[in-house]
Amino acid sequence: MSALIAAVDAYLQRTAEARLDELQELLRIPTIGVLSDHHGDVRSGAEWIAARMREIGLEHVDVSETGGHPVVYADWLHAQGSPTVVVYAHYDVQPVDPLDLWVRPPFEPRVEDGRIYGRGAADDKGQLHLHLWAAKAWLATAGRLPVNVRYVFEGEEEAGSPNFEAWLRANTQRLDGDLVVITDTGFYEGNHPAVTVGLRGNMHLQIDVAGPSQDLHSGSFGGVVQNPANALVRILASLRDGEGRVTIPGFYDDIRELTPAEYDTLARLPFDEAGFADEIGVPQLFGEPGVIPQVRRGARPTLDICGIWSGFQGEGTKTIIPAHAHAKVSARLVPDMEPRRIYELARKAILAVDVPGVDVEVSLEDTMHPFVVSVDHPAAQTAARCLEEVFGSEPYYIREGGSIGAVASFDQVLGKPAVLLGFTNPDDHAHSPNESLVLANYEGGVRTVARYWEALGST
Amino acid sequence: MSALIAAVDAYLQRTAEARLDELQELLRIPTIGVLSDHHGDVRSGAEWIAARMREIGLEHVDVSETGGHPVVYADWLHAQGSPTVVVYAHYDVQPVDPLDLWVRPPFEPRVEDGRIYGRGAADDKGQLHLHLWAAKAWLATAGRLPVNVRYVFEGEEEAGSPNFEAWLRANTQRLDGDLVVITDTGFYEGNHPAVTVGLRGNMHLQIDVAGPSQDLHSGSFGGVVQNPANALVRILASLRDGEGRVTIPGFYDDIRELTPAEYDTLARLPFDEAGFADEIGVPQLFGEPGVIPQVRRGARPTLDICGIWSGFQGEGTKTIIPAHAHAKVSARLVPDMEPRRIYELARKAILAVDVPGVDVEVSLEDTMHPFVVSVDHPAAQTAARCLEEVFGSEPYYIREGGSIGAVASFDQVLGKPAVLLGFTNPDDHAHSPNESLVLANYEGGVRTVARYWEALGST
Repeated sequence: MSALIAAVDAYLQRTAEARLDELQELLRIPTIGVLSDHHGDVRSGAEWIAARMREIGLEHVDVSETGGHPVVYADWLHAQGSPTVVVYAHYDVQPVDPLDLWVRPPFEPRVEDGRIYGRGAADDKGQLHLHLWAAKAWLATAGRLPVNVRYVFEGEEEAGSPNFEAWLRANTQRLDGDLVVITDTGFYEGNHPAVTVGLRGNMHLQIDVAGPSQDLHSGSFGGVVQNPANALVRILASLRDGEGRVTIPGFYDDIRELTPAEYDTLARLPFDEAGFADEIGVPQLFGEPGVIPQVRRGARPTLDICGIWSGFQGEGTKTIIPAHAHAKVSARLVPDMEPRRIYELARKAILAVDVPGVDVEVSLEDTMHPFVVSVDHPAAQTAARCLEEVFGSEPYYIREGGSIGAVASFDQVLGKPAVLLGFTNPDDHAHSPNESLVLANYEGGVRTVARYWEALGST
Repeated sequence: MSALIAAVDAYLQRTAEARLDELQELLRIPTIGVLSDHHGDVRSGAEWIAARMREIGLEHVDVSETGGHPVVYADWLHAQGSPTVVVYAHYDVQPVDPLDLWVRPPFEPRVEDGRIYGRGAADDKGQLHLHLWAAKAWLATAGRLPVNVRYVFEGEEEAGSPNFEAWLRANTQRLDGDLVVITDTGFYEGNHPAVTVGLRGNMHLQIDVAGPSQDLHSGSFGGVVQNPANALVRILASLRDGEGRVTIPGFYDDIRELTPAEYDTLARLPFDEAGFADEIGVPQLFGEPGVIPQVRRGARPTLDICGIWSGFQGEGTKTIIPAHAHAKVSARLVPDMEPRRIYELARKAILAVDVPGVDVEVSLEDTMHPFVVSVDHPAAQTAARCLEEVFGSEPYYIREGGSIGAVASFDQVLGKPAVLLGFTNPDDHAHSPNESLVLANYEGGVRTVARYWEALGST
C-alpha cells in the first residue's frame, strides 16, 4: 500500500460519520424522475450534488440541461500524463409504491443492522455518493487526483435515459477520455465482489393482429372467420422451439463465440440450480439444452413474450371471436448481434407465418446494443485487483443479463472501453420496497475507487 | 285455406292496431334481467304477460318461482286427440348500453318505416307476444285451439338460463307434450323465411399457466426460466393446425355425418363469400379446407380463443417474464359430440404438451349440448309449409352456429323433438342499439303460428 493510500484510508476512517450523515441528506431528496410531482425535487438533487462537487474542489461544475432532467457534470483534469476516466452514475430513483410495504418511509433513511435503508441507497445515489468521497479523500489528503476524471451523473436513468445519448453527442468535447467507469451494478450472489464485463442488448417489438372490424359471436361466426388470437399464438409459437431455442432464421448467425477464457470465467461462477429455482418459485429452470445457466443468463440471446392480450379477460365466459390480438416480444441480445438486424429477421419470420384472413403488423418498440469488455482488458483486471485488495477475495467477472441504456450510449457515442464497477449487495431490493445498501459495500466502494484511481494513474 | 283460418285471419286483420299498441305496452317495461336495478321491472313484465294470458282464456296461469326471475307458465289442454306443444320464448332483454347510440330511448318503442323499434322488439318480447295473439285469435274466433299448448316463458335467457333446467326438472308434470316449439331465432340473410334445424353445442375451458412467483426482469432471468406466456402460446398453437382443423386427438371421432339430404339443404343456401367477408371487415374467410362455409358455420365444430392475457399490456415496453398466463377457449360442437368428453380430450391434449418449468391447469367453464332435428321430421316440414303459405316463398332449413341454453335443456330433460320457429329479420340489431322487428315478420309470425297449430292438430 502506498503512503498516499494509507493517508486516504486514514481520512476516510476519520470522516465515516460525516460521510454517512451526508449520504442520508442526499437520500432524503425524493428524486423520483418519472413522477411530475417530483420534478422540483430532481432538480434540487442535481443542485445538491453540484454544490458538493464545488466544495470538494472539482471544476467546471455544471447542471447541464438535456430537455429532461439535467446531467450534473464536473471534472478534474490536472493529472498530466495520466489517463482520463469518464465516471457515470445516476441520481434519479424509482417510484416507491407500494408504499405500505416499506417498514420506514422511503425518504427517511436510517442505518440499521449494518445497512443503510432508503430509496436510492443502492440504486444509484449511494454509489454516486461514494465517487464524490473517493475524490474528496484524494483532494483533501494529496491535493490532487492520480487520474483525470470527468463525472457524468444522469437524472433520467429510471426513465430509460431518453435524452442521454443526445446529451453525449452534444457534449463530446467534454467527454474526451480513455476509459468509462459505470457504477450502477453490483456484486454476485452471496455478496461476492464482481466486475461486470458484459450486458445484453435488447430488441423489443409489438405484433398487432387485426381480424373482423368488431368482436364476433363465436357461435354464429366460428368456422368461417380466422380468429386473430389463434393466428397470434400460431405466430408466436413459431418463433421458439419447445426447448427454448429461437427459431427465427439467422437469429444466431452473428453471435461472437465466447473465448475459452470467457467461458471458463462464467463456468466457474457458483450457481445452485435447485436453490435458484426455489427462490423464484419455479419447479425447474429452463433454457437452451447443452448450455449451462451461467452462460444462458448473460451470454446467450433470448426471446420472451413480455405481454399478450386479446378478447375477454374477465370472470366466466364471453363467447367471442376477438376483433384483434396483440403481443409484446423482447429479445435479449449478445455481441455481435445488431438490434435492428435482429428486428428485421424477426419481422420477416413473423410475416412469413401463413395466417390467412387477418392482417399482421409488426413494429419496433425499442433497441439497445449489447456490450462486452474483455476479461483480459487491463482496466478490468486492475479494477478486480483493487476490489480484491479491499474486500479480501478474488472477484468474479460476470455478465449481467439486462441492459443499461447509458452503457450502450457511451459505447455508441464514445467507443471507449468501459468497466462496470459497482458495489451493491444482490439483496439490495432495488426498485422494490425497503431498498438498502450494505454499509461495508459502501465503505469498501469508496476505498476501491480511491485505489482504482491510483492504480490507473500509475500504469 | 280452412274456413276457421279465414276467420282467424279476419280477426287478426281487424285487431292489428290494438295488437301493435299492446306490443308497445310490453316493450315499455324495461325487463333487463341481468341488472339488479331492474329486478322489479322483470317481475312487472312477468305479471303483465300472466294478466294477458288470463284475459285470453289460457289456464293454470302461473308466475312460477325459479330462485331467479320467474317462468310464466300457462296452458290450454282441451284439444282431445291432438298433440300437445310446449312453446318457449323469453321476456327478459339485453342491457341497452351504449345508450348514446340509440336514435330513440330503448324503452320508448316507436313504429317507423315498417318496423317496430325498441329493446326486445325482436329478442324476444315481440316473438313472445305473437304467440299470445295466435292463441287469442283462435280462442276469440273458434273458442278453442286446434292443439294442446303449454307456454313456458323464461325470464333469464340473457343471463344464460342459470335456473331454467332445474325449473324444467321440477315441473316435468306440467311439461308433458309431444313437441317443443322454440321461438327465439329468425330468418336467413335477405330476410328469407327459415326453420332452424340445428344448433351447435359449446365447451368452454380456461387454461392457467403459472411460472415464477412474481414477474421477473427479462434481462436478469431471460434464458434460465420458462416464460408462462411462451408456454401458453405453444400449448394453444398445438390445438389447431394452420388451416383451421382441430388437432386434439379424438376431437372429430363422434361427429354424426350429415346425410346427403342435410348436406344438400345447407349447400343450397345462398352464400356470398366476398360480400360476407366484406361485411364483417376481413380480407377473406377462413376455415377447414374442402368444407363449404354454409356447412362450416353450423355443422362443423370449432376451436376459438375467446380471450388471452399475460404480462404487460400498456403503452411502450416493460421487459418482464410474466408470472402467469391465461386463456379462455371455446369449442362449438355438433351432434354427437359430448361436451364433457370433448373437455376431457382437450384437457388431455393440453397437459400432454411438454412445457417444462411451469405449472399448467385446465378448468371447465361451461358446457352446452348440440341440438339437431332432422329436416325430414314432420313437425319441421309442417312448420316450413306454414311459413311458405304466409310468406310466399319456400323456407330454408338452417343450422345456427350458436347455442341456446333452453333448447339444450329441453332436449336433456324432456327428450322431445323441437322445432325452432322464429321470425326475426337478420338485421334486427338484437343485443345492439336500435333493435327492431320488421312488422311484416311480426304479423306473418302470428299467422304462421295460427296455421301451424291447425296443421299440427289435423295431422
